[in-house]
Amino acid sequence: MPVRAFDLKVLKKYILNGWEFHVIEMLHDLKPVEIAALIETLDEDTRGKLFLLLDVDTASEVISELSDDSRDDVLDDITDKDLAKIVDDMDSDDATDLVGDLGKSRAERVLSAMGDQESDLIRSLLEYPEDSAGGIMQRELVSVSHNATIDHAITSIRQQHSEIDDIHSVFVVDENNGLAGTLPLVSLVLAKPDTLVSQVMEVEPMSIPVNMDQEEVARVFKQYDSVVMPVVDNHGMLIGRITVDDIMDIMEEEATEDMFLMAGAEEDLLSSSILKNVWSRSPWLLVCWIGGVLTTFLIQGFEPVLSRLVGLAAFMPVIMGMGGNVGAQSVTLVVRGLATGIVPTTHLTRIIFKQLGVGLMLGTLYGILLGGVAFIMYPEDFRMGSIVCLSIINSMVLASMVGTALPILFFKLGKDPAVASAPLVTTTIDLLGVSAYFCIAAILLF
Amino acid sequence: MPVRAFDLKVLKKYILNGWEFHVIEMLHDLKPVEIAALIETLDEDTRGKLFLLLDVDTASEVISELSDDSRDDVLDDITDKDLAKIVDDMDSDDATDLVGDLGKSRAERVLSAMGDQESDLIRSLLEYPEDSAGGIMQRELVSVSHNATIDHAITSIRQQHSEIDDIHSVFVVDENNGLAGTLPLVSLVLAKPDTLVSQVMEVEPMSIPVNMDQEEVARVFKQYDSVVMPVVDNHGMLIGRITVDDIMDIMEEEATEDMFLMAGAEEDLLSSSILKNVWSRSPWLLVCWIGGVLTTFLIQGFEPVLSRLVGLAAFMPVIMGMGGNVGAQSVTLVVRGLATGIVPTTHLTRIIFKQLGVGLMLGTLYGILLGGVAFIMYPEDFRMGSIVCLSIINSMVLASMVGTALPILFFKLGKDPAVASAPLVTTTIDLLGVSAYFCIAAILLF
Repeated sequence: MPVRAFDLKVLKKYILNGWEFHVIEMLHDLKPVEIAALIETLDEDTRGKLFLLLDVDTASEVISELSDDSRDDVLDDITDKDLAKIVDDMDSDDATDLVGDLGKSRAERVLSAMGDQESDLIRSLLEYPEDSAGGIMQRELVSVSHNATIDHAITSIRQQHSEIDDIHSVFVVDENNGLAGTLPLVSLVLAKPDTLVSQVMEVEPMSIPVNMDQEEVARVFKQYDSVVMPVVDNHGMLIGRITVDDIMDIMEEEATEDMFLMAGAEEDLLSSSILKNVWSRSPWLLVCWIGGVLTTFLIQGFEPVLSRLVGLAAFMPVIMGMGGNVGAQSVTLVVRGLATGIVPTTHLTRIIFKQLGVGLMLGTLYGILLGGVAFIMYPEDFRMGSIVCLSIINSMVLASMVGTALPILFFKLGKDPAVASAPLVTTTIDLLGVSAYFCIAAILLF
Repeated sequence: MPVRAFDLKVLKKYILNGWEFHVIEMLHDLKPVEIAALIETLDEDTRGKLFLLLDVDTASEVISELSDDSRDDVLDDITDKDLAKIVDDMDSDDATDLVGDLGKSRAERVLSAMGDQESDLIRSLLEYPEDSAGGIMQRELVSVSHNATIDHAITSIRQQHSEIDDIHSVFVVDENNGLAGTLPLVSLVLAKPDTLVSQVMEVEPMSIPVNMDQEEVARVFKQYDSVVMPVVDNHGMLIGRITVDDIMDIMEEEATEDMFLMAGAEEDLLSSSILKNVWSRSPWLLVCWIGGVLTTFLIQGFEPVLSRLVGLAAFMPVIMGMGGNVGAQSVTLVVRGLATGIVPTTHLTRIIFKQLGVGLMLGTLYGILLGGVAFIMYPEDFRMGSIVCLSIINSMVLASMVGTALPILFFKLGKDPAVASAPLVTTTIDLLGVSAYFCIAAILLF
């Protein structure tokens, strides 16, 4: 399945020497996705050179499969005119993504160099928000009138087959292009040629409103096990279709986005510059830093307590660490649970209470364990053990609560729960946990 | 798309009063997936009652769509004999998952109550590891001989259409049932009835080896934008097929698994008991606890340093916190990057070096900021500022390194990088960061 055994060194030599014929021969048996995988393994200079050797048909398929990084390398090496030809040949959804990622002026140059019909199509698709159904749909589809016969539907497929990949269904429309039904290919195969499509189509077909959020679209696909769905505008007119391969990309994207959001980092690990990396990580680290400075002031305020029992400092890290980890666990469980629908939104209070119970049990367990350690370390003063025990219980209960309630709160406010990221949660917990620790100490010691 | 407007209260009343006819009428227009969604919203007692009113056909589709929780409720209320009928009607992959989840003795009772052919099929599928291609494939498929005509292929589809959902392709086999090609439905639609399938089929089709890991299967589907793929045994014989709806489930499952693994938690937020929750979270918390206790001993060893400058304690949390967060960011980026292929496995050293640079810049930035704060708080002793500044740099560089290198190390050892979870990373960083802090302090103070 992956790129077949292949002599990369030989290929590179051919490319660098400009032995086009040899290169083309080597690539002959590869599928576009395999050529794309091959380009990924090349260095910046050879990527563009190899790509320029591809014919338009292959190039238009290869370019949709490339990583952002390789695509940028390739785009740097290609003229606007050649790019226009390639974009013209791409599926409208992939073409729109590509043009949308070009700079504004280059996008305009490429669109002007294309045929009017195709460039108008792309311009119209660029109007939709990138993460809506309109932003991911493609215009290419096979549709027939509800008055047509099966034979007519087959003729439509024959005419458009070369331009449209992955025809899974034919969409049936009424006089006004309103979506009237869908006709899966299997029904087409089994029906007699002179049957009316309206007799065998699925009526009241599932459809996606053009402004639906892509995450919601993915959920509908998953729920109904669909491979393709028609997209309709506000008046129920058929304007495009979404295929399952885009849904797989979205599912992966959304999971990655949530994970990175939760860790407070968003970056392209390999390609972007160190400075960009530093910048993209900074917001959460700043939150964490401010929380840290506040904690520092707070502890300084407790210096009289600390001076009385210097040993108190020794237990600070473990109390914060246990709280932080419990909090990170809770926040992950809730965020992912909400994203996948494992957590039914009707039972949110029940979840908060359950997490309270979990925090209390864990806190008691580890509180007793660590209190014991403190007692052994400071046998002369039993108060140390009590302070540590109570503080761990407090810190872990607090952490479960914050870690559970914060993402639920964001969700209730209509925000992405993943924004209630681990840094925010751990910083809050640190601050609250340490204050409580010193308060407990102050009460028990004085 | 979601469950249509529906009077739940009325439905519940009907169910509890046993007014079967009314219930069945209310459910009449709903698709199986919608009935499943409806069952999720009911309480434990009504779930089973509603399910028992469904006909076998509907029940077999509904049960595959239920959450584990609702499914267990339903299974509790149904006799082995009725369950056998439902399982008999399910797709073999879903049937196998269901039977595999029953207790051993109940599974045996249900299988014995089924037809021999279907139960043998399930028994054979139960042999494959759950997370391999064999564990997710279904046996139901349409295959024809390479000598057959298109007309013959259509007849095969017609015969099996009622039993097999989602026929996307017909698989072509040779005399020994070896996979010879695939025939997408669209080719079938366009070809003339008397054409030989071998003339229009795709030769050298992509196929999935039966022992391939499901995560790898998902990657292949995503890479090739497939909706269905044939599964072959070690001799290239066609033994099943995998459809894209299962792939979507796997992608979601795997992302969730990675997230939970990284947070060191694995639990069903709503259904399982508090005790089970406590138990599933314990391993990582124990790691964290042991790390915490070690840190405690370590700090206790530095008590002479601390007594000399009690203010040192105040900066511990922020130094640990900054390190912990940078570490969690790095580990998330690397784990997810490896899982999605964003991080090419050929450039791992480059990534480690880049993260070193990022850590160094972030550390210097925040080190100077916090050193400044320390200088303002302790103007009488400039050493405090230097200690804090150096310690933050050390802690953040260390954190990027551990957070990047640990998952890469796990990956190189052939383990799941997600096991290098955030708790493990933060605990390691805490321990190393705090030791370094006191060492730096000891050196500068004495």
